[in-house]
Amino acid sequence: MTAAEPPEPVAGRMTAAVQRDGARDEVAVEEPLEIRVDGAALTVTMRTPGHDEELALGFLLGEGLIDGPRPAGLTEDLAANVVEVAGPLLRDPGARRFYTTSSCGVCGKGSLEEVAVHAPVLPAGPRVARELLARLPDRLRQPGFRRTGGMHATGLFTAEGEPLIVREDVGRHNAMDKVVGRALLDGLVPLHGRILCVSGRLSFELVQKAAVAGAPVLVGVGAPTSLAVALAGDRAMTLAGFARGDRVNVYSGAERVAG
Amino acid sequence: MTAAEPPEPVAGRMTAAVQRDGARDEVAVEEPLEIRVDGAALTVTMRTPGHDEELALGFLLGEGLIDGPRPAGLTEDLAANVVEVAGPLLRDPGARRFYTTSSCGVCGKGSLEEVAVHAPVLPAGPRVARELLARLPDRLRQPGFRRTGGMHATGLFTAEGEPLIVREDVGRHNAMDKVVGRALLDGLVPLHGRILCVSGRLSFELVQKAAVAGAPVLVGVGAPTSLAVALAGDRAMTLAGFARGDRVNVYSGAERVAG
Repeated sequence: MTAAEPPEPVAGRMTAAVQRDGARDEVAVEEPLEIRVDGAALTVTMRTPGHDEELALGFLLGEGLIDGPRPAGLTEDLAANVVEVAGPLLRDPGARRFYTTSSCGVCGKGSLEEVAVHAPVLPAGPRVARELLARLPDRLRQPGFRRTGGMHATGLFTAEGEPLIVREDVGRHNAMDKVVGRALLDGLVPLHGRILCVSGRLSFELVQKAAVAGAPVLVGVGAPTSLAVALAGDRAMTLAGFARGDRVNVYSGAERVAG
Repeated sequence: MTAAEPPEPVAGRMTAAVQRDGARDEVAVEEPLEIRVDGAALTVTMRTPGHDEELALGFLLGEGLIDGPRPAGLTEDLAANVVEVAGPLLRDPGARRFYTTSSCGVCGKGSLEEVAVHAPVLPAGPRVARELLARLPDRLRQPGFRRTGGMHATGLFTAEGEPLIVREDVGRHNAMDKVVGRALLDGLVPLHGRILCVSGRLSFELVQKAAVAGAPVLVGVGAPTSLAVALAGDRAMTLAGFARGDRVNVYSGAERVAG
């Protein structure tokens, strides 16, 4: 396996200079993004600018509101913090609006019964080496994190560990939305046979987003939650956490892990 | 300075057992919580059960919807995942509903202009030793994190570093909401003269919550974002990040930091 450079690791105004103890320091940019569909405001998320159309499409896919690419673009006014997406949506988000933030994913449900967005049970495969899973976070590289210490990353990889898409953002859910949105535009969804890798913890919402996108394997540097393990088991997803160098914990779908 | 045990560090069903590589492991519990006001669903957040009334009150305070304690309690049905709060609210959240998740805080705004909730500029003081700020995260202790590797903590401390309230949660915004809600019930709000300390990164939303609660000093283990630094500067808050053992970076309000 080669360690190819991830395509488009960073873009746009992702970091900013601030004063810290009288000296210049670099921090991750965080700004609100409003997502509009056919001109109507749907949600606001706090995100790092860049790949905003991908973020919007990935978010809408994860919410079950679209199932394929849509025209999307930033408006030129409002400090480039509004992204317009062409409708119509697959279903009416309802009279209610839903709101999201940098780590949000169950927005717009309004009742406990509506938390889980439907996603099919994942098909068998691929078979992935345990050692590969353990080392995959190293391949995220994370130039933004190295400069600021304050960014999360998500990467889409082949079963052999080749990076296809990598995105960084102050919000870990945004980073995954951007990867999924790019994959949607590239015709890679459903992500059967692929691996999603995240730099942080594994929440219910990240498992949900991965499941809706059809990713059979999700691995993270951090800990899973109870509901993340439950949902992954329910959808036959391989969920692995604490991937650090030479070790990784497998919580579900161990049949895909070799070695 | 003594290193007193934080009161009520954990409570309730905060961790759960799962299978991991064929052995028993312990993970942080993550479950949805619906917040209702006078019977109407207002928001859903993914949180670790425990101190849910505090979470609801802290959240509502941060959103500018209440300014003092309210009767609040878990309903007995629905798996104890619904908390009822007595109304009325200070303002109408509007026809729209707003939704939050484990790391949410700008919910319910719907437009960029509405992101910032008004909070008064903070008064001068207290004076805090730099060494104290750097070591404050150690005093969070975090028993839940030690067991699961998957929880955030927030602590309220005196200017001398004595812990008053410490809470852990899968969501870092929830942990702060729980601390602020408890402080509200204890008559400690506004938190003038106190220090808030968080185990993670410093987002805009955490600064906003701290500012609305009147905390003049916010210190975290992780990096601040651009908007967090900007908001802290605007409200005359002392914002410090990367607090680790013997070092800490001060991004704003350095006049409160001695040494």
